[in-house]
Amino acid sequence: MYLSEMSKDQLVGFKNDTLALYNDFKSQGLCLNMSRGNPCKEQLELSVDMLNVFDDGDFMSENGVDVRNYGMLDGIPEAKEFFSDMIGVSNEEIIIFGNSSLNAMFWAVQTAFNKGVLGGTPWSQCGSIKFLCPVPGYDRHFKVTEFFGIEMINIPMTPTGPDMDMIEKLVAEDDSIKGIWCVPQYSNPDGISYSDETVKRFASLKTAAKDFRIFWDNAYCIHHLTDSPKPILNILEEAKKAGNEDMVYIFGSTSKITFPGAGVAVMGASKKNVDELKKALGISIISYDKMNQLRHVKFFGTFANMCEHMKKHQAIIAPKFRIVCETLSREIAPLGIGEWTDPEGGYFVSFNAMDGCAKRIVQLCSEAGVTLTGAGATFPYGVDPRDRNIRIAPTYPPVEDLKKAMELFVICVKLASAEKLLAE
Amino acid sequence: MYLSEMSKDQLVGFKNDTLALYNDFKSQGLCLNMSRGNPCKEQLELSVDMLNVFDDGDFMSENGVDVRNYGMLDGIPEAKEFFSDMIGVSNEEIIIFGNSSLNAMFWAVQTAFNKGVLGGTPWSQCGSIKFLCPVPGYDRHFKVTEFFGIEMINIPMTPTGPDMDMIEKLVAEDDSIKGIWCVPQYSNPDGISYSDETVKRFASLKTAAKDFRIFWDNAYCIHHLTDSPKPILNILEEAKKAGNEDMVYIFGSTSKITFPGAGVAVMGASKKNVDELKKALGISIISYDKMNQLRHVKFFGTFANMCEHMKKHQAIIAPKFRIVCETLSREIAPLGIGEWTDPEGGYFVSFNAMDGCAKRIVQLCSEAGVTLTGAGATFPYGVDPRDRNIRIAPTYPPVEDLKKAMELFVICVKLASAEKLLAE
Repeated sequence: MYLSEMSKDQLVGFKNDTLALYNDFKSQGLCLNMSRGNPCKEQLELSVDMLNVFDDGDFMSENGVDVRNYGMLDGIPEAKEFFSDMIGVSNEEIIIFGNSSLNAMFWAVQTAFNKGVLGGTPWSQCGSIKFLCPVPGYDRHFKVTEFFGIEMINIPMTPTGPDMDMIEKLVAEDDSIKGIWCVPQYSNPDGISYSDETVKRFASLKTAAKDFRIFWDNAYCIHHLTDSPKPILNILEEAKKAGNEDMVYIFGSTSKITFPGAGVAVMGASKKNVDELKKALGISIISYDKMNQLRHVKFFGTFANMCEHMKKHQAIIAPKFRIVCETLSREIAPLGIGEWTDPEGGYFVSFNAMDGCAKRIVQLCSEAGVTLTGAGATFPYGVDPRDRNIRIAPTYPPVEDLKKAMELFVICVKLASAEKLLAE
Repeated sequence: MYLSEMSKDQLVGFKNDTLALYNDFKSQGLCLNMSRGNPCKEQLELSVDMLNVFDDGDFMSENGVDVRNYGMLDGIPEAKEFFSDMIGVSNEEIIIFGNSSLNAMFWAVQTAFNKGVLGGTPWSQCGSIKFLCPVPGYDRHFKVTEFFGIEMINIPMTPTGPDMDMIEKLVAEDDSIKGIWCVPQYSNPDGISYSDETVKRFASLKTAAKDFRIFWDNAYCIHHLTDSPKPILNILEEAKKAGNEDMVYIFGSTSKITFPGAGVAVMGASKKNVDELKKALGISIISYDKMNQLRHVKFFGTFANMCEHMKKHQAIIAPKFRIVCETLSREIAPLGIGEWTDPEGGYFVSFNAMDGCAKRIVQLCSEAGVTLTGAGATFPYGVDPRDRNIRIAPTYPPVEDLKKAMELFVICVKLASAEKLLAE
């Protein structure tokens, strides 16, 4: 029976029963963290052999540069070759960064803000400027634009990607809209992959702002949870067809392929963009860690090998996603008090509670010892207008802990929902 | 005989003899690079065992964080403990960055520019702002301030540090002066170490701008070339005595201790500054490479061990500095056509030619196959008002190459000087 169809007496009974279960959990003194999309220990072990690749004592990149020394601002040639496959660009359309794609994105926004793009007016001098933010989305994206005082406009997500009608209309009319944050494959947190049509419409955007940039954060490009993954279209190729190749900045990293703390981040863009960006980059750094670049290339050898490697991750984390979705299907679906995604890749399950219940659920979980991503975090300024979205990150906890945490989670959802219905 | 005392006939003879030697060199087809302060291969080998520290399979920092995963924005505790000794701060006064102190400095300027310091007005909104630049100085410092459109004012160096009378007067009068670039020990390129009085005067500066910051780039803090190094005073300690502790940003790195491309950079500042800076830092990155932090701590163990390690560097590069200075003493001193420093540490010999000769000398060297740092590079905007300073970087070339390069260098100095005197 749906919770909304219960009589008041039934609801009170349901609430009291749930509260008893909740208090029982609370007394167990749990301490579990599902707040961030961290790989688990078993995943980290998958890449430990990468640390031995220099046992041969060979530190030379293929162009004769000693990777231990200074130089090669935009990366060693073999790293460009290797990672260009990952993000679907050519060797001339890539810059290899340090260990953080977030840092590369921050830098790219900062550069546009302080120096403009391709010789244009610095965004800081364009008056009040705006970014479009498909929601729910990645909290750290929103924090970057907020840092620079860029106004953020929510764009609803659909099962095929962001609402393209709305985006096309807004960017055509308003030249103060300078960019959009996208996680095109297995979006954070919904796990939605942009349809071919969505990618084509992005690639063909007609923007009032000549310096509009799509921040295409392809963080989960090879992070599949199924055996028959569906690739998304190549945005740079599509943009070239539309004569829009300068509009796209692509980002990716090995944070969830090798080590989150010590991976390699990359940025792809048109050669014109890359050439211009390198001038600014050379002001801020001499070179990133080329030893780590070569470590990755030597370890994997080929892009195909890296894709094989991802199947080992899948084997570890796919069962965890199943636990989350099965628990929700069993406990929440019959009550009609929530909806969620069953993603085919990425790092999250996006749960939508009844309106006005997300904060309360997160609070209840927290008080019983399970930390979730803060309610609202998936929206600009931390404000979820409907207070319903919760990002569940199942990868980090051991299976038994995750089962426990999900047991608690569904209890909290039930309790918050009953409270809400009783208060109406 | 000084070149300036020669008759015209003597000068013409001298020039022709020198030109013959130069042309002889030119025909040898040399290809040597002395443009940057890069460690040589032998130096890089000193730290290769650092790559084996994880053979024990232990990736946990002392606070129980797996260094392979996300987290610890400002560094792992043992790295803070270890590096705080290097830059003379406490564990609460340090942030551990990635592989580049230049990147940390760029970020610190960028943060002040876009967000202000300690809640102050962003420098970008303070109208036209200025930095003081002791000259000659480090070209990459100047490029950072130039990037943000910050006006740079030359401050002459003296044997005890920058001209403090001039600095004290300027900062007291002009609140648009927001900062100064300093390399306090073995300055780049002069190799000058600031006297105790200079450090104390810096620490006691009375500045019109409340948000003035000293960018104290202690890049060569333990990079001695003698067996009895003279330490400089601790700027943060002195600033605390003067109630000025928020005025100092200290930077350092292991770029020339372990690997230039894969070292660890750090920033020191008052706890108040560090707490504020971390808020901004957390927008731009989740965490830097903690594996590399732990790699360094495990490899050295103690700060004292790292200082011992520096003696191995000294043994390799001190002889190279001797080659440079002995060649100049033998070939240039008797002619009175140049002055230079004989540094007790750091990475450079700073050569001052006769006024108006630096560009010509660098050009002559280049045409004969030896690349030097561009003339003018050691000044803001690349403009050496007297066109006389040349930065010689002796560490990278093998000894035989360095000897060859210095032979050519002195020939070019002689030739350019004779040309100059004949044209007067």
